[in-house]
Order: sequence, then structure tokens, then C-alpha cells
Amino acid sequence: MKPKPASSAGTISIIPIRGIPNVQPGDALAEIVLAAATGNNIQFSAGDVLVLKHKIVAKAEGRIVRLDSVKPSRRALAAARRNQTDARVLELALREAKRVLRDKHVLITETHHGFVCANSGVDVSNVDGGESAVLLPVNPDKSAARIHRKLKKLTNLHIPVIICDSFGRAWRQGLCDVAIGVAGMRTIVDYRGKRDDLGYELHATEHAVADELAAMAGLVSGKSARVPACIIRGYAYIRSAGNARQLVRPAEKDLFR
Amino acid sequence: MKPKPASSAGTISIIPIRGIPNVQPGDALAEIVLAAATGNNIQFSAGDVLVLKHKIVAKAEGRIVRLDSVKPSRRALAAARRNQTDARVLELALREAKRVLRDKHVLITETHHGFVCANSGVDVSNVDGGESAVLLPVNPDKSAARIHRKLKKLTNLHIPVIICDSFGRAWRQGLCDVAIGVAGMRTIVDYRGKRDDLGYELHATEHAVADELAAMAGLVSGKSARVPACIIRGYAYIRSAGNARQLVRPAEKDLFR
Repeated sequence: MKPKPASSAGTISIIPIRGIPNVQPGDALAEIVLAAATGNNIQFSAGDVLVLKHKIVAKAEGRIVRLDSVKPSRRALAAARRNQTDARVLELALREAKRVLRDKHVLITETHHGFVCANSGVDVSNVDGGESAVLLPVNPDKSAARIHRKLKKLTNLHIPVIICDSFGRAWRQGLCDVAIGVAGMRTIVDYRGKRDDLGYELHATEHAVADELAAMAGLVSGKSARVPACIIRGYAYIRSAGNARQLVRPAEKDLFR
Repeated sequence: MKPKPASSAGTISIIPIRGIPNVQPGDALAEIVLAAATGNNIQFSAGDVLVLKHKIVAKAEGRIVRLDSVKPSRRALAAARRNQTDARVLELALREAKRVLRDKHVLITETHHGFVCANSGVDVSNVDGGESAVLLPVNPDKSAARIHRKLKKLTNLHIPVIICDSFGRAWRQGLCDVAIGVAGMRTIVDYRGKRDDLGYELHATEHAVADELAAMAGLVSGKSARVPACIIRGYAYIRSAGNARQLVRPAEKDLFR
């Protein structure tokens, strides 16, 4: 099934950037992504958004921990028995957690960033075959801002950057990619006070566009396809100093909790 | 910022279908969408997925209620005082609910389908300027299957159909489009038991691809752009008898609740 090129105006494209090497601590990510894009015959252009899987960002930032260096606490050992997960992974997850929301079958935590996810986002896949774990970036918004600025320097273009990770959801099965770091664009678009095509004033229609862009990237990257970066072309983002913290609903305002 | 055509292999495109008229009860949706696509010079081709906003499906199925025909119960009147919403809308929301999860600021319910959302998905925007409300389709999976079969008849192609709506999320601000009806493709892709590129066996990596496709559609449709349909081209879906019920996490298995 070879896809035909899209013809209609307003089309949005998600262009995978293949051939990114296994990133090492200290690697210059913006340069690596740019080189891989060039290798794919892709040139960044005005209007593009870059979406990166958090893992290559975390790796470049050295957020990798060898599991044999981790001594699990009693709490982690107990959680490991309950959840049938490596106690060292759970030890890291507990260290990365501000709060444990659930500890049965899976450890659900609120991370220091405020994200609610399994195991504080600590993950062993796609690192080094099971010997090390990768943690979420310390401050993914700052990471995104840094890459955004570097891209500006290298290309002279304003390229918003979204860093994404796959999170589980309450009420719904399966993971979905969401934005955990954002720079250079508005993350939430607010339609409140606007009128629909029939003159009715819209209420409660804030859209988490950064999460929707992240979800797109989730589709091209998959889990084993090693496509940790993609360009979204044709989406009319709103230029602003947005960040992913805006996507975190404060616990006391959480109508769904 | 005119988007350039995407060049890289593996690119996914989201093609808006513009010019769909205001759908009326009884309208033949597959024919209408096909005619609009033709009007946009878009031809369906093998591999395409069609995503429809639930509202045009619900309208075609006659799921429209004139608000002046709704007599709010005492419960709806009380909820209206708490939530500053039209009591008649809340009356409809309560009728569509299996269970009320929260009734403060916003009414959060579990619908008869099992979806958790605000006001049972009852919505007044983009109907007729505020005089009527539209309810979710009675069985969105059946609706999707019907349109899917009709498209097969009309085009001789297998075109999976996703019906989407914008839902709020626990823990995260802003709405995101999710799949509430699916036909013709797998909704969740399971990577468990597979190995990553470095030989590590993957765990707990079921991806809700139908939700990620729905999120894409959310970006092209917006709220007032009147683009209630789009084609996703280039996504290698898995052909199967999937449905959106599979995306509903049973309450007793909800690790996040």
C-alpha cells in the first residue's frame, strides 16, 4: 500500500526522520537530528514542528542508570513483589516520584514534574538491552527550549519542539503519546468565547494541541521502529512561549479525579 | 507558511475533507463524505482511514433534541445551579449516563457506552445556534461499521472508519480527540512479548492507535473550521474487526482510578 502524495489544501504531514544513531550522553541532539534529516533528504522549513521521543533527549542528557548500581529499598522490594517488576526499576521510579497514586499491579506515580504515569516514566526498553534504565529528563520544557534555540541557530528557522512519551490513561486502554516538554508554540488552544459557525458561543473548548501533535508522532515512531524524531508539517501552530507544565492539571482542579 | 509536500518514505498525511454541508437526520453520510472528497479533488485509495467527528454521525442518525422539549428533573436543576450549565442539557446528560462520577463545576459521567466524559458527551455547539443539543450516537461502533460497509460498496475499497469526539482527561488540561467508534482496523496494537532493537523484551506496550489517529483528526478539524471529516493516508493499520469498546478500561481494571 504505497501512499499517494496528499493533494488537498490544509493537509498535515508527519515525516519520520530515520537513521538517528543510538544517542549517547553528551551528544548534541539538534545537530544529530538535523544530520539525519539531511540524510533523509528532508529540509526543515518554516511552519515545521519537531517532535522527539523523550528517550533520545534523556539519553543525550545522561539520564541513564545502570541497574546493577541501584540498591532497592524495602519499599521498592515490597512493590516489586506486588507488581512483578524489577525492584531496581521500582526503586528508581520511587525516587522520581513526588507521590504514589497506586501500587497494585502497576506503580502509578505523580512525578516531580507533575505528570501522572506508570513507574514515574522509568523505562528499560530501547536503552541497552536491559542493563540500564532511562529516566525522564529533569526538566523536559528546558530540554525542548534548548533544542529549539539550537535549531534556530543552525537553520535560522523558528521550529517549535515537542518532547513526547507514551502514557497510560484513566478509563481508557492502551498508551497514547503526550507532550512532556514543549518550546516555541502554544500548547493549549482556547476556543472559549468564540462562536461556532452557527453563532453559538463556545464553552469549555480548550484543546491540548501539543498532546494531539505528540499522539501523531506516536504513530510514526512505534516501539521498535527506531524513529525517535519526526517533523509535523502543515499544522498552523500559534507561536508563543508555551510549555508542557500548562498541560498538567493541578490535583485540586482535577474534575476527573 | 505554505506547507511543502512531504517527501520522505513513511510519511503519514491527514487530508481534511472540506465543504461537507450541515448534515440533517436521515442523510446518507458515506455518500455525502464521498461527494465532498470528490469536490476537493480527493480520491480514496487503498490504505486510507476515514475519521469522522461524532457530531455529523449523530446528526445523520437523528440524535438531536430540541432543548425546549426537555423538562429538567429536580436533580438536573440542582446540578445546573452547581455547574452553571443549562439544566436541560444536564437533564439529557443524566439520561445518557450509566453513572455520575462527579457533579461539581462540571458533570462527569460514565455513558451507557462506558465512556467517561463531561456531560455524557451532550453538546450544543455546532448544532443549530443553541436551540438543540446533540447526543452521542447510540452505538458508535455500529455507526462506524455501517459507514465502513457503505464505503466498501461505493468505492470497492476497505476503508477503516473512526468516529471521534473531544474528551477531557484526568490529570491533563485541555481536550483531546479520542475514538468512540471504530470499524475495519485494530484499535490497540500490542507490542508485548516483542523485542526492542537492542534485544530487550517489551512489556506493557499496548498502544491505542485508534485514539492517536483520532487525535490527528482533532488537529485538522478544530472547533469552528467545519471540517468534520478527514482522511489519514500512509498509516499502516492492521486490518481486523476492531471496535472502540476495546478502548474502554473496565472500572475494576482501572489502575489509574
